[in-house]
Amino acid sequence: METTVLTRDDIAKLVGQVGLNQLMDNVIGTLKQTFETFDEAATIVRQRDGFAYHKPFPGVLEWMPVMQIGEAAIIKMVGYNPNNPTLYNVPTIISTISLYDISTGQLKALVDGTLATALRTGAASAIASQILARRASRVVGLVGCGAQAVTQLHALSRIFDIGQVLVYDVVESHARTFLDRSRFMGLDVQIVPREILERESDIICTATSVPIGAAPIISDEHLKPWVHINAVGSDLPKKIELPLGLLKRSLVSPDYLPQALIEGECQQLSLEEIGPSLIELIRNEQSYSSFRDSQTVFDSTGFALEDKAVLQVLLSLAEQYGIGRTLPIESIAGDPMNPYNFFPENVTKAASLNSPVSVLQPVF
Amino acid sequence: METTVLTRDDIAKLVGQVGLNQLMDNVIGTLKQTFETFDEAATIVRQRDGFAYHKPFPGVLEWMPVMQIGEAAIIKMVGYNPNNPTLYNVPTIISTISLYDISTGQLKALVDGTLATALRTGAASAIASQILARRASRVVGLVGCGAQAVTQLHALSRIFDIGQVLVYDVVESHARTFLDRSRFMGLDVQIVPREILERESDIICTATSVPIGAAPIISDEHLKPWVHINAVGSDLPKKIELPLGLLKRSLVSPDYLPQALIEGECQQLSLEEIGPSLIELIRNEQSYSSFRDSQTVFDSTGFALEDKAVLQVLLSLAEQYGIGRTLPIESIAGDPMNPYNFFPENVTKAASLNSPVSVLQPVF
Repeated sequence: METTVLTRDDIAKLVGQVGLNQLMDNVIGTLKQTFETFDEAATIVRQRDGFAYHKPFPGVLEWMPVMQIGEAAIIKMVGYNPNNPTLYNVPTIISTISLYDISTGQLKALVDGTLATALRTGAASAIASQILARRASRVVGLVGCGAQAVTQLHALSRIFDIGQVLVYDVVESHARTFLDRSRFMGLDVQIVPREILERESDIICTATSVPIGAAPIISDEHLKPWVHINAVGSDLPKKIELPLGLLKRSLVSPDYLPQALIEGECQQLSLEEIGPSLIELIRNEQSYSSFRDSQTVFDSTGFALEDKAVLQVLLSLAEQYGIGRTLPIESIAGDPMNPYNFFPENVTKAASLNSPVSVLQPVF
Repeated sequence: METTVLTRDDIAKLVGQVGLNQLMDNVIGTLKQTFETFDEAATIVRQRDGFAYHKPFPGVLEWMPVMQIGEAAIIKMVGYNPNNPTLYNVPTIISTISLYDISTGQLKALVDGTLATALRTGAASAIASQILARRASRVVGLVGCGAQAVTQLHALSRIFDIGQVLVYDVVESHARTFLDRSRFMGLDVQIVPREILERESDIICTATSVPIGAAPIISDEHLKPWVHINAVGSDLPKKIELPLGLLKRSLVSPDYLPQALIEGECQQLSLEEIGPSLIELIRNEQSYSSFRDSQTVFDSTGFALEDKAVLQVLLSLAEQYGIGRTLPIESIAGDPMNPYNFFPENVTKAASLNSPVSVLQPVF
């Protein structure tokens, strides 16, 4: 029994075969289906837990476990280290996803979670926007132009006929390089002052690394009466992005309420002020369509069910195209009662001969 | 930046190079050193957490996180599925260990944890026995002859000059096959009734899958006045192996008190009845040597610090012998602000051309 490993190169190959748009469409479709068919009685979603630290730099290492009862468990590990791009030239969010067979406890698959996180976070915003934003939304505003902004826009572009993209970042170079990073979508992207973005956008995505205490990152003065906002950035206790007045006035839909209350915009609200979850939205799409003409917020904190969906997409496509490898990671073979069983025979023979009883000092 | 992966074959090769006795000696030495130098202020040990389930069969999937502040985090995943040997011909305990660089959040290494768990559990018992058992202990009794019994005995054989090994298992075939599995140690191993084992043994290791409520698995009637017991099997709330009277009379040393109170023999005791932890034993070895002539118990639940030590041994040896591989698992490359950056250029070019806006149905 071996572990399927998809490397970065495997995923690049896979995207080369499938096409980036088709991949995003699959993630959106599968995520929606996962939410629609979600059976709370058959699934145990754990709130994420982790280590928060300040050394060597401020960051978080989190685990997000979910179990499909009787079948499988998935654990996504996520590192959130905002200094990564500047210090190490690697993304703020770095992640892997592991799939376990709970009939035996074996690791069935290990797949990158960095791209997966970006894909599913974009897909979740697209689904929420599809239900809560005006169908005719043509102007998308992006506040925060980092890695997540790329997939936010890509996912939205698969649902809406976007005429104009307005972008803003407190770090001006991030907005500038976003023009290159988003070029493949063939959209009209313009860097604008934040006020213009707020005034013109039908849909806004906020995906920032705003420090705790520095919010809100948009004002509540110029927004369109029908604006839909995907608030993606808040993912830590006390980290928020949106002004309270806007939240109180809007239909606020959390992806996963228990977590959004701790880490999302919902931290700012009492329970009665919070609207239906994304799952409820999807299941009752028609009854929420009337909110398209008023202000709405998708409070996206990201949760394990989404990772399950994107893992399913990546593994299915990899299998379909024969991409990836299997590795025998766990030391199991032959006799389950003998932890030394997988060694060549001479190893255990030699051991009995050449080593007298002794307590050695460690070699390092 | 890539992930070092040690497969089952890599570890077999490594043991072929190093020798099994030398490997165990290294684990014992490194574990002892890890305990000796353990700095509580610099380490955050989390109690294990996980999913317990009854479908498809009773089992547990657990994660055991530990963080060396400012440096690294290690998470061991452990599946405990007692039906594994019978149903799937794989071990009850199956495990992997992951090492994360917390300056970036990246997965630095993924290594089998199945052998590692067996090695470090054996090593911990050997260290406790070295301090609490009589130096002249010659008879070792094993109650429960599964996979853990192999490394319990192997580790003890590196410390003590064992003249005789007495084994007992409620499943008689487990005791019988143990003769083969332990042959490489060149010891005199005999299957005996439990009463004989209790009467004759200087050191006893209990490593059973006794169901909750079915304990104790040894009686308190025949034990030697100086017996040292390594109680390895209790690792779940309510799962215990030893009789209460014995525990109350003995010096009971837990490996990690907070966990032993929940999952170990210490569940049966109040705080005042519990002795020094293994760390305290190691640090004050001389002051506890007087207990060698009385009854003592090492309450082994297994904890993350031990996994850190054995991971260190395996990775260091692999590096020393040039064994293992590195894989680019996380999808990071080039531009940290662009999650699509690692694709070949034609992928993002083609995407803008060939796919009109559409919401497709999921492909599966």
